[in-house]
Amino acid sequence: MVTQNTVEIPRSVWYGWGDPAHATSLSANALTYLSATLKLASVKPVHPPADITEVRIGEPVLNAEALAELRAACGTEYVSTERLDRIEHSGGKSTEDLLRIRAGDALGAPDAVIFPASSEEIREVLAVCAARGIAVTAFGGGTSVVGGVSPLRGTFDAAITLDMRRMNKMLHLDPRSRTATFEAGLRGPGIEAALEPHGFTLGHFPQSHQEATLGGYVATRSAGQASTGYGRSDDLVKSVHLETPAGPLVAGSTAPGTAAGPKLLDVIVGSEGAFGVITSATLKIVPVPTHKSYGSWSFASFTAGAEAIRRLRHEGLSGDLPHVCRLSDSDETASTFKLGGPKTAALGKYLSVRGQATPALALFLWEGATKETAARKRRSARILRAAGGIPTGPIPARAWEHGRFSGPYLRDELLTRGVYVETLETSATWTSLDSTYHAVREAILKSLAEHGGTGYVQSHISHIYPDGASLYFTYLAGVESDGLAQHARVKQAASKAIVAAGSTITHHHSVGTDHAPYLGAEIGALGLDVLRGIKNTLDPAGIMNPGKLIPAAIKEQP
Amino acid sequence: MVTQNTVEIPRSVWYGWGDPAHATSLSANALTYLSATLKLASVKPVHPPADITEVRIGEPVLNAEALAELRAACGTEYVSTERLDRIEHSGGKSTEDLLRIRAGDALGAPDAVIFPASSEEIREVLAVCAARGIAVTAFGGGTSVVGGVSPLRGTFDAAITLDMRRMNKMLHLDPRSRTATFEAGLRGPGIEAALEPHGFTLGHFPQSHQEATLGGYVATRSAGQASTGYGRSDDLVKSVHLETPAGPLVAGSTAPGTAAGPKLLDVIVGSEGAFGVITSATLKIVPVPTHKSYGSWSFASFTAGAEAIRRLRHEGLSGDLPHVCRLSDSDETASTFKLGGPKTAALGKYLSVRGQATPALALFLWEGATKETAARKRRSARILRAAGGIPTGPIPARAWEHGRFSGPYLRDELLTRGVYVETLETSATWTSLDSTYHAVREAILKSLAEHGGTGYVQSHISHIYPDGASLYFTYLAGVESDGLAQHARVKQAASKAIVAAGSTITHHHSVGTDHAPYLGAEIGALGLDVLRGIKNTLDPAGIMNPGKLIPAAIKEQP
Repeated sequence: MVTQNTVEIPRSVWYGWGDPAHATSLSANALTYLSATLKLASVKPVHPPADITEVRIGEPVLNAEALAELRAACGTEYVSTERLDRIEHSGGKSTEDLLRIRAGDALGAPDAVIFPASSEEIREVLAVCAARGIAVTAFGGGTSVVGGVSPLRGTFDAAITLDMRRMNKMLHLDPRSRTATFEAGLRGPGIEAALEPHGFTLGHFPQSHQEATLGGYVATRSAGQASTGYGRSDDLVKSVHLETPAGPLVAGSTAPGTAAGPKLLDVIVGSEGAFGVITSATLKIVPVPTHKSYGSWSFASFTAGAEAIRRLRHEGLSGDLPHVCRLSDSDETASTFKLGGPKTAALGKYLSVRGQATPALALFLWEGATKETAARKRRSARILRAAGGIPTGPIPARAWEHGRFSGPYLRDELLTRGVYVETLETSATWTSLDSTYHAVREAILKSLAEHGGTGYVQSHISHIYPDGASLYFTYLAGVESDGLAQHARVKQAASKAIVAAGSTITHHHSVGTDHAPYLGAEIGALGLDVLRGIKNTLDPAGIMNPGKLIPAAIKEQP
Repeated sequence: MVTQNTVEIPRSVWYGWGDPAHATSLSANALTYLSATLKLASVKPVHPPADITEVRIGEPVLNAEALAELRAACGTEYVSTERLDRIEHSGGKSTEDLLRIRAGDALGAPDAVIFPASSEEIREVLAVCAARGIAVTAFGGGTSVVGGVSPLRGTFDAAITLDMRRMNKMLHLDPRSRTATFEAGLRGPGIEAALEPHGFTLGHFPQSHQEATLGGYVATRSAGQASTGYGRSDDLVKSVHLETPAGPLVAGSTAPGTAAGPKLLDVIVGSEGAFGVITSATLKIVPVPTHKSYGSWSFASFTAGAEAIRRLRHEGLSGDLPHVCRLSDSDETASTFKLGGPKTAALGKYLSVRGQATPALALFLWEGATKETAARKRRSARILRAAGGIPTGPIPARAWEHGRFSGPYLRDELLTRGVYVETLETSATWTSLDSTYHAVREAILKSLAEHGGTGYVQSHISHIYPDGASLYFTYLAGVESDGLAQHARVKQAASKAIVAAGSTITHHHSVGTDHAPYLGAEIGALGLDVLRGIKNTLDPAGIMNPGKLIPAAIKEQP
């Protein structure tokens, strides 16, 4: 069997990603390229995060009675009002979160962090919070990049965070039906470690995999880097146990197919903690692949590459589709070549000679049993070559796989060096892919330059559907004097471009606080009313993760 | 290209299926087998439906003002209070419906039948009905077998039926993204006829295909006979336009993938007209297959056959799975052999010599482009033979395909001959398939015999999932003196067995009135509350298809 690269990383340091000791640094070459591209006077590491002792945080407002009831529910040692616990749970890992916490602002921290061990304990906690009017935010890996785990108070004075880390067991495995049930707090590598002895994998590897949890996957409809092959989390999930203020709800069932009314499971999947707390879920699993075949092809442009991938999806045999399929635009390809050293520089020159002056590189990974992966690659190669692809060998795909989870570390260093970096994603049909790509890209570039700065945008496709593909944008610029305002400005410009293109405000990052203002444009005012009606049924007091998913007037901590 | 057998049949005669002139009759051989198996004194056709002139129907209760408003909305000629229109819309095509209507009971008929031409007209009709308290049932092909189109009045005095037949256009085709938008009243063959000139098919062929409509597919989460290959209707649909009393709701979007909150589309798909009227929908389409390969294999038992199919699903290449995959149990196989004439009798003897005394026959159909279907069949054959399958050639699968839509006609003749016949379906994981099969089968057999009769149950698998398969039961017995009571008794016994097995009350027939009492056992009391909350948002007056989907106290016509 092929070992999946699923090493669990330490829980993130309070101001950034994972354990800084595990981070790889940007090379001198990369720094030179970066400062030249962004026209920065300096990229020296002179903007470190604040010292932990200087972080500003309010006094917890929970009174003794409330704390006593919460401690009765979960045990005294699992209800923390410690400063570090509260700081670590004051937000997720969006660039906005990092800009704020690195500046020493943890004023949004919860009043207590609770570490429950069971659905029953969570039920008791919710009863206490509903009765007393305390906002509740569930926290898995804490990797939200859209404000999903910010412990907002909504209309309440107090807020707690439920850290799910103690609920980390595989509860059931049905190898014959290929399903497994996990507690919500199990992290990505823990899921794989539980399945591997039985020869199975979930196949779900988002970039946050090493830190994110099963509950987070399900709550956010996450997609993984291999979701083209294995399916998104919303494809994999069969049933969910949700604890709500109105009681427990088991959505979905063991039945493999049903017509028993609307699929209520899909009301809970993607509900981002706003209806209740996911405590466990049953998902489909598959055998760990025994073989992998890697390949890459270069195209004359992003448009040409996207067309090749569409043909691969439409003209290839259905079983031949690669599990991983990524197409970088010319900008992202240029970055890869610039940062990859002499070998990739030579590759760039070769492609230029072959007529691809600004190539767009596509990476593929076929996973499966025995040698069929090679046959699938061979048949796919015919289509890709016919579509103008120049084969560039397996190394770029292997290199990508090697570093597939390390991206988030770089952001910490970039911010320390005064470089703003953010990502966002959408998806579009094959018909509208090109226009959506250009509209969003140009909106970001224009907004980045609004205050005189120089920005850089690169993009890739990483999820392939019958009807279209995802679009993922990474953008960089020097941090302006008001980084939070800069962030808000560019995000708003990009979001408006996505709405204007008629596309989705998020392909796999979910809604959180950041996308809530745009949800109405996507699902309509009546669609929002439906969400509110569901929330009112399950969470009549409105304590669950206020301010996320459903746009609402929220009362922030002063 | 392979021509799809998708001939539109005439709209059903008021007391049964389609145009009786198109029905094939049971052979003398079949009648002998039937009377012997069910131990019936006679199967003479002495129980014809009532004469149309004798059908009992109430006076329409809509007053002149209400009729005037409805006529203003849709045009005078499209608001009918004609006796035949009302009779034809008094119910669907369940055996219960037929027992009632054949006995001359159309007392449940709607007060008017309205034939709207647009979403706007439906919006106006709903406004009139909400203001005046008139129940509204949408009616596509009228093929519901679960009471889904019975125009119940709920708490209201009057009821209308919206017949969607005039809304029968393809509105948009995107060949590049492989999606198409249809009005809801377009029937199955009309969908195919609209797509075929462009080289596409929806691939959705339920047994009711020749009469059912797109709106019905989406409203009921229907599965087709080739859904193992093409996907169920709930897999195919991308977005839906729903007219509700609270206004129009567009659920879903063009985005091929999204994480923008819960998938509200799945609240509307399967909502069975209880939240509003589906007026159009966008679905994924695929190229019409150019090649088909047929095959059949026989197994020593249903259990052995199911295990072989599980291995085919799990061990075969993902692209090799047949589009159609059906496994009959020994009883259904015996019926097929008995009714198939000398050739199939010889096949039965051959299998007996090969050690399969009570064989279970599996039929397969691979569809696709060029010769790959043959290669897929060849690779699949290895797995099926290794699992104990004896190849029995392509003819049984071809014969099945030839008669795939004709089954419902037989029921009319059987009822005329005093033979009760009904079907129901569920699904189960591979792990629980065998126990669910036996539990439901035995519950039906026991209940059929409760009043001294002799029953016959046959079953098949027709939809394959990664985690399990569907189970479809057909059962027959002589009609008792109170056929409706007999029907209710057996259905209840089977439903209780399904609930006890922890399975789903319906795999593809939907909920309607018949399964509503069992929905709570499947989705929980809180799940029902969620449905009620959604209905309250979209249909606050409760006029939409009362008594269906959500169990409720209903006020029936006296």
